[in-house]
Order: sequence, then C-alpha cells, then structure tokens
Amino acid sequence: MNFPARQKKLREHLSTARYDALLVSHLPNIRYLCGFTGSAGLLLIEESGSVFFTDVRYDTQAHEEVKGAKVAITRKSPLTGVAEFLGKRRKRARKWSIATESEHLTVAEKKRLSQQSPSGVAFKDSAPVVERARMVKDADEMNHIREAVRLGARLFDRAVEVIRSSKNGGRKKSLREVEVAAEMELMARRSGAEAMSFPTIIASGARAALPHGRASEQTLTPDAFVVCDFGVILAGYCSDQTRSVWVGSAPGPAGSSADPFDARKVYEAVRDAQQAAIEAVRPGVAGGEVDAAARKVLRKAGLGRYFTHSTGHGVGLEIHEIPRVADGQTEILEPGMVITIEPGVYFPGKWGVRIEDMVVVTSTGCEVLTPTSKDFLAV
Amino acid sequence: MNFPARQKKLREHLSTARYDALLVSHLPNIRYLCGFTGSAGLLLIEESGSVFFTDVRYDTQAHEEVKGAKVAITRKSPLTGVAEFLGKRRKRARKWSIATESEHLTVAEKKRLSQQSPSGVAFKDSAPVVERARMVKDADEMNHIREAVRLGARLFDRAVEVIRSSKNGGRKKSLREVEVAAEMELMARRSGAEAMSFPTIIASGARAALPHGRASEQTLTPDAFVVCDFGVILAGYCSDQTRSVWVGSAPGPAGSSADPFDARKVYEAVRDAQQAAIEAVRPGVAGGEVDAAARKVLRKAGLGRYFTHSTGHGVGLEIHEIPRVADGQTEILEPGMVITIEPGVYFPGKWGVRIEDMVVVTSTGCEVLTPTSKDFLAV
Repeated sequence: MNFPARQKKLREHLSTARYDALLVSHLPNIRYLCGFTGSAGLLLIEESGSVFFTDVRYDTQAHEEVKGAKVAITRKSPLTGVAEFLGKRRKRARKWSIATESEHLTVAEKKRLSQQSPSGVAFKDSAPVVERARMVKDADEMNHIREAVRLGARLFDRAVEVIRSSKNGGRKKSLREVEVAAEMELMARRSGAEAMSFPTIIASGARAALPHGRASEQTLTPDAFVVCDFGVILAGYCSDQTRSVWVGSAPGPAGSSADPFDARKVYEAVRDAQQAAIEAVRPGVAGGEVDAAARKVLRKAGLGRYFTHSTGHGVGLEIHEIPRVADGQTEILEPGMVITIEPGVYFPGKWGVRIEDMVVVTSTGCEVLTPTSKDFLAV
Repeated sequence: MNFPARQKKLREHLSTARYDALLVSHLPNIRYLCGFTGSAGLLLIEESGSVFFTDVRYDTQAHEEVKGAKVAITRKSPLTGVAEFLGKRRKRARKWSIATESEHLTVAEKKRLSQQSPSGVAFKDSAPVVERARMVKDADEMNHIREAVRLGARLFDRAVEVIRSSKNGGRKKSLREVEVAAEMELMARRSGAEAMSFPTIIASGARAALPHGRASEQTLTPDAFVVCDFGVILAGYCSDQTRSVWVGSAPGPAGSSADPFDARKVYEAVRDAQQAAIEAVRPGVAGGEVDAAARKVLRKAGLGRYFTHSTGHGVGLEIHEIPRVADGQTEILEPGMVITIEPGVYFPGKWGVRIEDMVVVTSTGCEVLTPTSKDFLAV
C-alpha cells in the first residue's frame, strides 16, 4: 500500500482548503492512510509530516504497522496525546486551524479536544475528504477486494453444500439458519478472513422478507427461498454478496402458476432488475440513475412497491461506503469505484428475494466481480 | 426485559435536568430501552411517551421487537424522521430543550438535526445517563450475562481440546492461531451466539506480548504461552474471558529457574494480582482502588512496569462499558455492576500472560462468574 501517496493527496487538499492540519479519527480512514489496524488512535496530518497517536496497548503493533507517520504512544487517551502534542508546538503564537472529521468525531470528543488544546488552535468541521479519496480504489486495493470477493463466493458454495447435505440419505434433517452461517464462517476463518463483513444473513421462509434477517435458530423452511447475504474481511477489505436459494423441489417455470407473484416470476424480475442496473453502470452516470434502472424493471413487473431499500453502496475497507446507489444520489461514478448492485423484493410476513453482486466501474462500463451464477437454484 | 421501567427512570432524570425530551442515538442504549436490535434508529423519550424512528428496511423487525415506544418508519434517514416529527408537533410556540448523547452523536449529525428541526428546538449535550443506568444490571440482564459467560467458558474448553488434539498420535501437527479461533467460533454459532464480543485473540509465543493480538496465521509456538482472550454475544449480552495456556511440556515449579521472569513465576504473580483485585471488589470501593490492588502485587514481584493496561472494565450489552477499573477512576462500585478483572504482564518481543474473569459486585464483595480454573495449564 502506498501510504505516502495517499497522504500526499490529502496535503494538497489541506493547502487548498487553508487548513494547517487534518486530524483523522475514523479508524478505516486511519488504516487507509497509515496502515494501523487497531481499535484506538488518531492521525494528525500536517504539511511537514504526520504523527499517529495511540495508547500503550498498541505500542508494538503501531510500530510494526504504521507507515508514513511517526508513532507517539500515550499513557492517556490518544485524544489527550494530540492535545498535549499541540501544546508543545512552537507555532502557538499564531492561530492554528485543524480540520476534523465531523461525520465521525463526536460532540463530546470535539469539546474535549478544544478544552485540552492550546487556545490558539481552532478545530474546524471538515467534509469527508478521506472517504471521498477512498471511493476510487487503487491497484493494491483492487487485488485485496478481488480476493475477498473470491473467498466470499466460495462460502456461498459451502452454504449450498451444507443445505444439500442436510438431506443426504433420503432422511430430511432439519437445518437451522445458524448452522449454515457457522459452516460458512468456519471456512472464512480457515481461509484467512479477519472477520465477516457484517452479521451473516441466512433468512428462510417468512424471514426472507426481512432485508436484514440475521441467521437465527429457525430451521430452513422447505419449498421457500432462503436469502443468503454475507461477506468476509480479508486483509482489511470487505466482500458483499447475496443469493436467494430455493429450498426443496423446484417450482414450475415462470408464468406456469396463476399467482402473479409466483417464485420463479419474482426471481426472474429481480434478476432482470439487477442486470439492468449493472448495464447502467459506467463512468459519468450518477448513483441515482443506476438505482432508477433497477427500479424501472421492478415497477414494470408490478413489484415496485416491494423493493423497499436502495440498489447498492460502495464497498472497500468498510462494508458501507460512498458512493451510495440510491434514489436521488447525484454522485457521479468514476473508473475504480467499487459498488454493490442488490435489488430485492419483499412480501412482509411471506417471503423475499434479493440478488447482489459487487462490480467495479471500468473506463467503458463495469466488471462484475462476483463469479457466482445467478440462475434460479433449487437445492 | 422491563423496558417501560427502564424508560421511567430516564423520565425522572429528564424532569430533574429540565429537559423536555431525550434523543437516544447509541444503538446499545436503544436496545436497552426498547429492545430494538437493528443497526439504524433513534429513540425519542418524552414525559408523555416514546417514539422509535427507523427506516423501511426495519419495518417488520421494529414492529416485532420494540416495546414501550411507538414505531415510526421513515423513507428517509431516522434523523430526518425525528426532525420532521418535531416539525409537526404543536408545542412549537415555546422553546423545546432536547438532550442528546454527546458521547455518541457526531458533530455532523448534531448540525443536521439542528438545521432540519424547527427553530424553537434546542439540542443540548447530555451526560451519558443511559450508560450510567446500564452500569447496574437487573435480574433479566444477569441471567443473560451468566449464560454468555457459561458459553464462553465452554469455548475455552474447546480451545484446549483443539490444541491438545493437534498433537494426537505422537505426530505433532502445526496448528495455526486462526484454527483455534475458528473452532471456538463454530461452537459459539452452533450454541446460539449472535456473534463474538470482539475479534478473538489467540496470541502465541512473542505475539502473546501484544495485549490485542488477534488470531493470526502464525502456528502455535511450542514451549510458550498462548493467550486466549475471547467472548460471545448471547441474546445481546457479552462475555469476556482470558486464559494463558502453556503449549508443550510444563516448565518446572515457580522459582526452579534462575531466570527472575520464568514462566511459572510470572504466571503465579499475574494470578495473585488477579486474586488481589477480586478480593478488593465490594460496594463502596472505587474502580481505581481495585486497579491499585492488582498493580501492587505485580510491583512487589518486580513486574509493575510490564503491566501496561488497566485492570478491567464494565461488560453488558457492550464489551467495554463503564465503570472502568483503572488508575485514578473514582466511580464507586455498587451491587449489580459487572466488571472484568484482567491484569497482564507483557515482555515486548518475548512473551506475555493475562488472566481475566468476569465478576458481579454483590452486597458484601463479589461473585466470580467465570467458572474456568486458573491453575497453570500445560497442554
């Protein structure tokens, strides 16, 4: 990772915005800028150099991990460390303007910073400049993201295997949602994942209608969809993928049922919506336009009001990043941005379907990163 | 869970502090007060009642989970939902003072709230009143905590089994730290844990000197300690436990080596320090006094400067809560508070030892919740 190059970009922003320094408090931003992976720290970026403040628990780790910044270990909190550091600086004579991350710094932290720092220092609320820089992934990041996506796809194969094997030998064993999640997470760990990107969603039967239905003690409902939405964190980078699998014998082809909302028909509509959104992704297009492409397909299928969330979001060091792919979003897509495309349809109390891939914006359109088939799958 | 009783306590605080309402934004506080377990929401508590705001993704879930508050679903963000709700209220004529959680609300969120709300509404910075209420656990909470601790202890037994079995049949297989973590996490999932309390620490050999050494790809170092620090979240409540296991044949008894820092001697010193801290826990004592009790033992053993973190912290819906058990902490312990006692000694680049139990303050002292033996264990 080229940490000095990333910091250099920010320094250019600092001088444009006439700040003397930027105080980075959001941990994923800190990791992006200097490589620190622990849970407590603050990074102060000035024209002349950077200093990373952390506490004694991270003494060894910070010295090992941090690149492009001096490491300052404090016996108190990193925040007090920063304030004391500023107090010792010689420039106190003149006013000092330090940008802070107002989307992350809490009201109380800002107050403590101001109280503990010398009187000439003014803490300003800055736009999310590091997040904006992080939207476009560099080559190192793309390598990590590709690996995370590949591992994620293997976990889905494992989930299918687990569901299938629960019916081995003719005897139909009941399988709990958490058991599917457990086997996926075991494979993730063994394959080097630091953690899952978010609590694994294995939502079966009526629970599939919950867009955020974490794996529960419920057994998989036969002759119904199970929505599997999951991801891994590998070397800091997240994957995010959803497939909706039919558990039981496959229903007839789309349209063979009189029910306007039969399983095949709805599945195909969601898949078409997802494909339309993927085809809408290219440089110069706004996030809102991609969202509209998916929504249009579902509206035509009479399913518009059952698509209750947005179409996607950026992914990287965090599972939810900018740009957002949602109604009204004007952020323009650029090559190197990585986003999810994940329309879904939910009938509350009944069932639901969601299909999600990760894609990277290319110079002419996008590349779908997730390798898993989206054909209707009955297990 | 008696959510109305918990909210009632806060209402008493509201009237004392002369706030018209409290806006709760910290998710564990929301869960504590109304039962919502999702990842987006705001709870507005007034004298006359409470309203919980969340977005469409959580429509079904919020209606199922939330007790003691009306549920308001917004197509925009919960924050905008709150602002619009305030805008529609009739009391606009007079000034309205709403307490916010300044330790959690970000600078940007507070700004947006103020901008979007009617002009008569003033958002004030409140002390962490919900966290203070959460320090003393009620009977329902203690049941959940005891179950989480019991499951945590079973995971440790599993870890020992995994380490032991890696040497089965005379052939010494190399075992990676992540494999130990993976097996523990598989058991946690199968036993109904929602998640681990924090990234599982399995830190072997020189990595044992990192107080936060997440399980890595490194294989377990023979004839050295492996520090196992882990916990589960069960029904929302966290467990936290550490044991340091000797991998290989047991070294001689403490003092049999000429090395002043031999493994047995250091282990016994940490254990004595932990016991001294446990014995110091009782109502009326400050967190700092408990910390001092552990520190005194290690200082006498010549190990004071290797004990680089604090002795413990509160545990409950969050893995780190108040009260803190650290140098200078004046918070007075009360019956029903649940804290960790976890002194450790670390020789950077060499090795480390930590022993951690969870205890609950009783009317006369404390009860150790963690059932696992603390005898020196060689596997």
